[in-house]
Amino acid sequence: MTSLEIDQRFMRVALGLARSGLGQVWPNPSVGCVLVKDGQIIAEGRTQEGGRPHAEVVALQGAGDAAKGATAYVTLEPCTHHGKSPPCCDALIAAGVSRVVYAVDDVDPRVAGKAATILEQAGIKVTSGVLNAKARAQNAGFFKRVQEGLPLVTLKLAMSLDGRIATATGESKWITGPDARRHVHRNRAEHDAVMVGGGTARHDDPSLTARDVGAVSQPARVVVSAQLDLPLSGKLAATAKDIPLWIVHAASAPKEITRAWEGVGARLLPVPCGRDLRLSPREVLSALAEQGLTRVYCEGGGQLAASLLEAGLVDELHVYTAGITIGADGLAGVGLMSLAKLADAPSFELVTARPLGKDMFQHWRKT
Amino acid sequence: MTSLEIDQRFMRVALGLARSGLGQVWPNPSVGCVLVKDGQIIAEGRTQEGGRPHAEVVALQGAGDAAKGATAYVTLEPCTHHGKSPPCCDALIAAGVSRVVYAVDDVDPRVAGKAATILEQAGIKVTSGVLNAKARAQNAGFFKRVQEGLPLVTLKLAMSLDGRIATATGESKWITGPDARRHVHRNRAEHDAVMVGGGTARHDDPSLTARDVGAVSQPARVVVSAQLDLPLSGKLAATAKDIPLWIVHAASAPKEITRAWEGVGARLLPVPCGRDLRLSPREVLSALAEQGLTRVYCEGGGQLAASLLEAGLVDELHVYTAGITIGADGLAGVGLMSLAKLADAPSFELVTARPLGKDMFQHWRKT
Repeated sequence: MTSLEIDQRFMRVALGLARSGLGQVWPNPSVGCVLVKDGQIIAEGRTQEGGRPHAEVVALQGAGDAAKGATAYVTLEPCTHHGKSPPCCDALIAAGVSRVVYAVDDVDPRVAGKAATILEQAGIKVTSGVLNAKARAQNAGFFKRVQEGLPLVTLKLAMSLDGRIATATGESKWITGPDARRHVHRNRAEHDAVMVGGGTARHDDPSLTARDVGAVSQPARVVVSAQLDLPLSGKLAATAKDIPLWIVHAASAPKEITRAWEGVGARLLPVPCGRDLRLSPREVLSALAEQGLTRVYCEGGGQLAASLLEAGLVDELHVYTAGITIGADGLAGVGLMSLAKLADAPSFELVTARPLGKDMFQHWRKT
Repeated sequence: MTSLEIDQRFMRVALGLARSGLGQVWPNPSVGCVLVKDGQIIAEGRTQEGGRPHAEVVALQGAGDAAKGATAYVTLEPCTHHGKSPPCCDALIAAGVSRVVYAVDDVDPRVAGKAATILEQAGIKVTSGVLNAKARAQNAGFFKRVQEGLPLVTLKLAMSLDGRIATATGESKWITGPDARRHVHRNRAEHDAVMVGGGTARHDDPSLTARDVGAVSQPARVVVSAQLDLPLSGKLAATAKDIPLWIVHAASAPKEITRAWEGVGARLLPVPCGRDLRLSPREVLSALAEQGLTRVYCEGGGQLAASLLEAGLVDELHVYTAGITIGADGLAGVGLMSLAKLADAPSFELVTARPLGKDMFQHWRKT
């Protein structure tokens, strides 16, 4: 093995640790760190639930004095600024590591590129860019929040072969099978929040929790509903005191209704809206990013999906296809988009596709 | 290699030969034959264009006297009846082959199971059932015509991720890319006919030919249009004298219009229809099977696709998915189906899925 291959091998372990933290650590990025000495991993760490302590600190605490002379593999450039915790660069220096390998530069302007200088000045060897593309993809949500003030959006569509999510009579349970549903629950757990439109909340009475996948903390449940015309008697309202329920609504919505929702335990996020009383999807996402969300998993319905697609706000598209056809009187998975011409259609490239039980799973990414 | 593995190896060659004849040999099945002596292939044959001569005869002619003592691998049970050509069993016996291996019994009641008896009575060793499932799938069109009086139907859908085949303004060129289109042309060539509804013929002005894939003979082009409200000025009419154009229409359609289409070279297939003046998809396919068609490739539009699906008449479903979304105002790939409940939806199982250029190709088969 070349030294690059060795670095990649340990970085892959660090990325695996970081992945397990996705959805659990917002508003921070999920970072993984392994400490290696004499070719052996002596300690591991990842960003803890809620974003602190950071991965490096967890790993250094695990290693204790053995960290001296070790190589630290970190999926993201170690932080250099005094935020809510002292900077990880200081901790790495204090622990006496001899080399730091990281995958991708931070895009936070307070941090980007500074770590290498500080570490090298302390006599530590620094290598960056190992498995850069993988780390970039893994941190896409955090980077997008920092750079654009928006979370990464994964849109999930579970449809028939002809793109329908329910029959004309509204029957939708179950179009896709148990393997696809389990996959969806795992994806809920890897996002900071699960988001649906008001129509889906009204019609499906969903729980929107990540079940049977060992999620440590549940994703926030976000309902987008300008006028809050949602039943206070549904599962979401009933569970709002235990599992976060956020409602993004028009700032002009009636106060007695917002107060009622606050009463059941929901968090209200008012967003200004235009004369047509419709919420702009960008304003909605911007409000969620302000709350610290980095990764949002949207599960429809058709109108919310269409408005996100139309505005170019869908980063990742997860399509589950069941081997049935429903026909054009069924409910469309993607609602009205008012596309002027084909060349304007939002466009995606295939990341991966595979069978999932009797269904097909396709992962497409914004081009 | 076991003797079964050896048999499978040569049968695979014979199936490959037969495959190259799909779409070219109706009303007959496409059969492949290889003659093997001392472990070497000494001659090959497949059913010739239009259905005659048969595969065995072509291979035996190629081998000449060397056929004596050879083993014949045939993808379908050799014929035993005097049809338009003398039976292949007689030819195999006359040539002195010592063993016949075939993949699947004929379902033609005049033939099924008789070959083994006749050959064995002539002192020839017979093995059947080698690569049976593959051969059954390859002959599905021929078998279906014989058993049910209907051709096998492959429905092609080339759609956006959300199941649309055109924008609201009718723009459809090109949703899928060049690799998918080439794949479609190859599939046209492997079917006896390409079929579209009248709306597609009117709107798209298609040629429906198999281009740039080395097709020896072109598939018949079938337009389903109850009242023949089709432009006599389009590409289909202009080429009807050179490439077969069949129009399936209501028996009650105006005579002056049917005569005009006969005038440009089309073949008219009147079908009785009910009071609603709509053609039954089963009647349409039955009329095509009566003409000898075994494999029909339907390319839409949405209403013809929906009526075939609703009637359970789609055997194979080819879905090409482009990485774009069009939204619910786009034209649906599958039209109205009036599904009462989800459990009644026509159901398919995945055969294969793979990327094709920037698009995805999925092949589903009726369950």
